[in-house]
Parts: sequence; C-alpha cells; structure tokens
Amino acid sequence: MKFGIIIKKYMEDEDMLKLKGNLLYGQSGGPTSVINASAYGVISEALKHHQYIDEVICMRHGIKGALNEDFIFMSKQDQEQIELLKHTPGSAFGSVRHKLKDFKEDDTDYIRLLYIFKKYNIRYFLYNGGNDSMDTCAKIADYMNQIDYDCYIIGVPKTIDNDLPLTDHTPGYGSAAKFIANTMMEISYDMLAYPKGKVTVVEIMGRHAGWLTAAAELANISGFGPDLIYLPEVPFNIEQFKEDVKKVYKAKMQCLIAVSEGIMNEEGIFISSSSGLKDAFGHFQLGGVSSKLASTIATDLGIPSRSVEFGSTQRAASHIQSLTDVNEAIEVGRFAVRSLLEGKTDLMVTIQRISSSPYEVEYTLQPLMACANVEKTIPLEMINSTLNGVNEKFIEYALPLIQGENQPKYKDGLQQFTKFKFQEY
Amino acid sequence: MKFGIIIKKYMEDEDMLKLKGNLLYGQSGGPTSVINASAYGVISEALKHHQYIDEVICMRHGIKGALNEDFIFMSKQDQEQIELLKHTPGSAFGSVRHKLKDFKEDDTDYIRLLYIFKKYNIRYFLYNGGNDSMDTCAKIADYMNQIDYDCYIIGVPKTIDNDLPLTDHTPGYGSAAKFIANTMMEISYDMLAYPKGKVTVVEIMGRHAGWLTAAAELANISGFGPDLIYLPEVPFNIEQFKEDVKKVYKAKMQCLIAVSEGIMNEEGIFISSSSGLKDAFGHFQLGGVSSKLASTIATDLGIPSRSVEFGSTQRAASHIQSLTDVNEAIEVGRFAVRSLLEGKTDLMVTIQRISSSPYEVEYTLQPLMACANVEKTIPLEMINSTLNGVNEKFIEYALPLIQGENQPKYKDGLQQFTKFKFQEY
Repeated sequence: MKFGIIIKKYMEDEDMLKLKGNLLYGQSGGPTSVINASAYGVISEALKHHQYIDEVICMRHGIKGALNEDFIFMSKQDQEQIELLKHTPGSAFGSVRHKLKDFKEDDTDYIRLLYIFKKYNIRYFLYNGGNDSMDTCAKIADYMNQIDYDCYIIGVPKTIDNDLPLTDHTPGYGSAAKFIANTMMEISYDMLAYPKGKVTVVEIMGRHAGWLTAAAELANISGFGPDLIYLPEVPFNIEQFKEDVKKVYKAKMQCLIAVSEGIMNEEGIFISSSSGLKDAFGHFQLGGVSSKLASTIATDLGIPSRSVEFGSTQRAASHIQSLTDVNEAIEVGRFAVRSLLEGKTDLMVTIQRISSSPYEVEYTLQPLMACANVEKTIPLEMINSTLNGVNEKFIEYALPLIQGENQPKYKDGLQQFTKFKFQEY
Repeated sequence: MKFGIIIKKYMEDEDMLKLKGNLLYGQSGGPTSVINASAYGVISEALKHHQYIDEVICMRHGIKGALNEDFIFMSKQDQEQIELLKHTPGSAFGSVRHKLKDFKEDDTDYIRLLYIFKKYNIRYFLYNGGNDSMDTCAKIADYMNQIDYDCYIIGVPKTIDNDLPLTDHTPGYGSAAKFIANTMMEISYDMLAYPKGKVTVVEIMGRHAGWLTAAAELANISGFGPDLIYLPEVPFNIEQFKEDVKKVYKAKMQCLIAVSEGIMNEEGIFISSSSGLKDAFGHFQLGGVSSKLASTIATDLGIPSRSVEFGSTQRAASHIQSLTDVNEAIEVGRFAVRSLLEGKTDLMVTIQRISSSPYEVEYTLQPLMACANVEKTIPLEMINSTLNGVNEKFIEYALPLIQGENQPKYKDGLQQFTKFKFQEY
C-alpha cells in the first residue's frame, strides 16, 4: 500500500481505491490559536463524504486517546460547537507529547493501535501537529503498510514556530505573528508616554527558530516597533548586545527589544540557562532570558529596564487571529481529507507560495518522512547585516501571513469556545 | 470664582459666565487603552464651540508640557489622526509623573503656569488622569482662584486601576478588564490541552486595589477561568495559599491563579519585596510576585509551575477594547467640555450607575479635592468567604463594563495609531 501503488490503482479505477470506514483525527504538540480551525476543515469536509466516511472520530490527547479508546464522535456533536472551532484556541481535543518507539524494537503500542483501528474500522487517519507529530504519523503509516492494513494516512501541519520544512509556512504562525506585531506596537506606543523611558526586553517563543521573534519587526511598518531583535539563528554576544542597547538608549532615551527564548552564545549554550540565578534558599531559579537580560542592563549599564514574557498568550490569542491564517488552517484540513479520498497516503499537506504580491498559495503534499524531525530556521539572507534584526526579505515573506481579521464570537463581552460532549459511541 | 458663585452667575445670565479663549488639555499618570478616546471626546466637542473656544491646545507630557510651552494645536491636525485617537492606546500627547508643590510653599511652577495661561489665553483647562493628576488639577484650580485669573478647570478621570472615588468606575478599567478576562480564558483553554498540567500564576496590575485582578473572574462565566484569585484587599498568607493550590491541583491536575502585583502579608509588606532573590553576582533581583509564587509552588509543593506577567500589555491592548468603555471615555471628555461651558469648575467628571441590568449610567461632577489622592478598593462584600476570589456582586458590577467590541482600524494587518504633527502655533 505504498504511495506508488495507490497512484497506480487510481489510474485504473477511481472507486476501487476508496475505502469505506471511519476517519480518525488527532492533535499533538503545542497548541496554536488555529489548530482547531484545521480540525474544523477536516470535520466539515469529511462529513460531506458519507459514501466513504461513516464517522469522524477525534482522539482525546492525540495518539494516547487512540491507545486508550478516548474518543469524541463528531456526528454526535452540535453543529454550533463544530463551527466554534474556527474561533477556539488551544487544543479542543487535547494534545500530547508522546514519542512512539520504533515498531521494530517495541511494537506494543502498534499492536494496540491496530486492534483499535480494526475495532473502529479506521480507514482514514489524520494527525495534526509539528515535527514530532509528523514522526508519530510517519511511524504509524510505516507500520500499517508493513502489516498491510488498508488505511490512508496524512499529516496536517501546525506550529506557531513555523519550523516545518518543505512548506512555505505553517498554519498557526500567521496568527501568533499578528499578535506579536500588534502587541509590540502597543508596548512601543505605551513607552512613548514618557520622554525618558526604560529598556523593555520582550521574550518571544521559538527555541531553535526565530520566526516568531522576527515577526516583531512587522510592528515597525506602522512606525512603532522594536529597536533590536535577537534570534536563535545568530550566536548571542552579550558585549555586542550591551553596545547595541547603549547606542539606542543614548539616541532615544528608551529601547524596545525582542528576544527569542532560544538565543545561545557562541558555544551553543542557551542564555536562559547560562547564568546561575538562585533564590534566598539556594534553589536555582527558572528564569526567562528576558529577565536575565533586563537584569544585566540594569546592573551593568545602569539603565532602568524591565522584561515582558508573552508566554502562552502568543499561541492562544484567539481574539486577534489572522484571517489568512485561519482560512489556510481550514483549507489545509479540507485538502487533507480530499487527498485521503484520492488514495494519497504517507504524506503531509504543505503550502506553496505562488506569489507574495498579490499573495497566492497552493496546497501540495510531501512525504511524511521528509517532514518529520527537521527544523527550518530563518535563512541568513533575511537577517540584517548588524545581526540584530531582519530585513525587507523577511517583511515580504511574513507580512502577507498576518492579513485580515478573524472576528471572534463574543457573548457578554467574552469569547465563545467549543465545548464538546464527551460521550460514548 | 468658586463653584457656588459660578452657579449663581449661571442663574442670572447664561452668556455672561462664558469666557472666550483657548482650551488646554493634558494627560497624566499611567496610560490606559482609552485615555485617547477621552481626548477625542474633548477635542471633537470643544472644536464645535468656536464662539467660546478658539483652539484646543494639548500639552505634551502633561503639566510639564505647559511649563515648557510644548504644545500641539488641534486645529492644525488632520481630522483622520484625531479620529484615530479612538483606537490608539498609550498616551498620544505624552504623560508625566510630576507632583506640583503647594503654591503657598513654592509658587515657581504656578507663576510660570499663569504666564503661559495668559500668553495663550487659556480659559478652559482639562486634566485627564488618576488620583495624582486630580491633585495637580485641584492645585492649579486653587491657585487660579487665589490670584483671580478667570479660568474654568475640570478633571477628566482615567485609570485602569479603577481606584478613583466618587465614580462608579473609571474609563480605562473596562478595556483592561476585557483583555484580562479574555486572555485568562485563552490561557485556561490552552492549559486544558494536556491532562496533567502545571500551576500557572498570572500577575495582574493594581498596587493597592484589586479591581483588575478580580476581572480575571469574569472568564469563569465562559467556563474557562482562574481557580484562585488573590487581591491586595486581603492579607496574603503563604501557608493558606499553598493549601489552596494543593487542593485545586489534587482535584484537577492543574491550577490557574490570578494574583495582584500588590498583595501584602499580614504585616503590610509586599510579597514582591519580601523574599530576597539574588543573582549569581549577589545583586537583588527585581522579581515579580508571580515568579516568586511559582518558584514557591515548584520548590515547596513539588508541582511544576510557571508565571505569566501581563505587564504593560494589559493597559495598552487597543486591539481588544470594550466598546462600552471607549464610548464612556469619549462621553466623559465631551461632558467635561460642556460642563466647562456651563461655567462649572474645580470639579471632576464622574460616572454614576443608574442600573446594571439594563446597564445605564449618567455623568455627574464631584469636587476635585474630594477625588484627589483617595484610593477606592474592592469592598469586602464583593470578596468570597474563602478570601481567594470574588462573588456574584463583583460580577454584577464588572460584567457590564466589558460589553461590546471597539473594532480596531487595521491596515495591512497592523493597527493604525494617531501620529500628530508637532508644530508651532
């Protein structure tokens, strides 16, 4: 049941290759504000194809839900709750960080999965996640091929980190970037209130790839944004950092800095772990990199400074989603279902950019194995010559991704999020 | 030129009491996301009354702008930029923290102000701020009365802290509360992704009054909100706190906490300053209360925990303003101008609630001196019996204030903020 064989079958008889059964869908890895929009795309598309797909079954907490038979059945849910997925952050079905072992070494989980797949007649499998999740997805596909269980398997990409390879960008990134750019604008404008300000160090997610931190630069298009940006792609030099800050502060009497949580020094040691902060009891402090840098500025340069950490807000800010991102997240889900029904398998959905202006993309498929466990970082050609910011090439790349606003569904001034009934089949 | 006299004049001849000259407006204290909406109300209303008000002059950086003749002249600005004030956070004219001395002890600033008032024919003066700003406003009014310079003076309230007395609430609070409630929902939903989670401690502004922290409770109306809330109105007991956290974590395997930056122990010492965190170089760490509590939970209870600080985002989040708050902020500015033109002086605009359901308010005036330097805290009747949350009375009070959404003005996915021309008269 390799991809090549499927295509061959497809050439012979379109209907022959279509299986009849249930579709199993799961979410995995860190939540994004639009992973549920992809779930919406999957569910709404799959429920259209009754002749092949009887039921859309969602695993709770990713692959663990499959192993534990912890399922939510979509035909039993209110349509209103399914619609709300387009506006719901987090992971409506629950997520998991569970690495499947190589089945050649330990097939316990796989035997259990096969039993569950047969019990529930799972013939279509979609797994929505990032690098690690594509690894899980690829392993399951590999196993099912090996034991010749007929099932089509496709990965649906998501990650705010934007670090998946072979795709122009990843659903989840645009909305997080929009939150970051707009919040940086607000912090910048807020700082202008006083003629003599502070140094503000804003810490942004992204352990190995600086895409999110770089999105802070988009704020400068409006005239209110960061002065300095430090990415994990560039080795961090504390002396150069202090020089940069002094120069900006001298000119402006304030300085706004965006820094990735994942910056490392020349020796590859995370800055967040390189200084030994202890509390009064002698315990090591779990300190963020921004508070460490703010402390350094205050201590070594004598300039008042403070740190801001966006924390989980940046991946959960459903109240400021990019409409482009939401629509693409939905489309990625829909395209995955249509691809399954065309007999495609062992692949991940990818987004290919046709043009930036006007912005246009198309959806394609790439081998799962090529997408798993690979991290795409910012190319050096997008980083400025002083290594403390990004250039026009990055702007051209990222700006289209934050366009449009997905209006939240408010009731009494509060957003409405999906609440599913967790019931038996 | 006391208030009583003005009213007498008003009774005799409406036009007699109207002065002809310029209106001087300034912003002071911490920014809010709607102080510029009040500025919009002031400017748009004042520019309607050409027969009395020639020009609206805005001080840059509050009273310091008046002392330095650092002014922005509104008739010279593009109407589009004035309209954008309704969507611009921070302090578009700049703020200041400058306490005027008692003029009986040192009248240097006052003599300078009088010179400026005469030079620019200032006959109407509006100062937009919180407790301290009302003190400034009252002192200027007092001085101008003393030396018998004809000028009407009114304070325009603003503060996210909601701690001004004699007003039901304060413009700026509703929008900050809306951001806090919705962001707490998002953090809460994000936490549900994993079956076994962390303790998340969210630190919220409010040094002496817990109104903002209490707003986190509104998130629970949606079903996704904090488990525990700690306010500065209640003495903080670390042992009781640990018991509360243990209990919630045992039941739910996660716990979301909202804590005011201003919580104090039984002896009145700020928790944020009561533990002596030092870095590796022996310097004291400027630590937030949330990181200290998260550290305590990890160390003493052995439960994984993390801290989140909303920082200036909570007062600057123009992308999620309460429409009720924005409209009231505008109306407070308009009402202030109309009151000046009725010869009212030495007063602050206040909002009186007529009913919560349906929500209805009216605008009134209270003596400036009664509003200056007084802080209104949460009454105990709004706090729950276990002292770790707020009750229905608070919900009834706060929920109407976050209703409606003020749609930001986006261009290319980024908000548009006011940019004034800083030009000569």
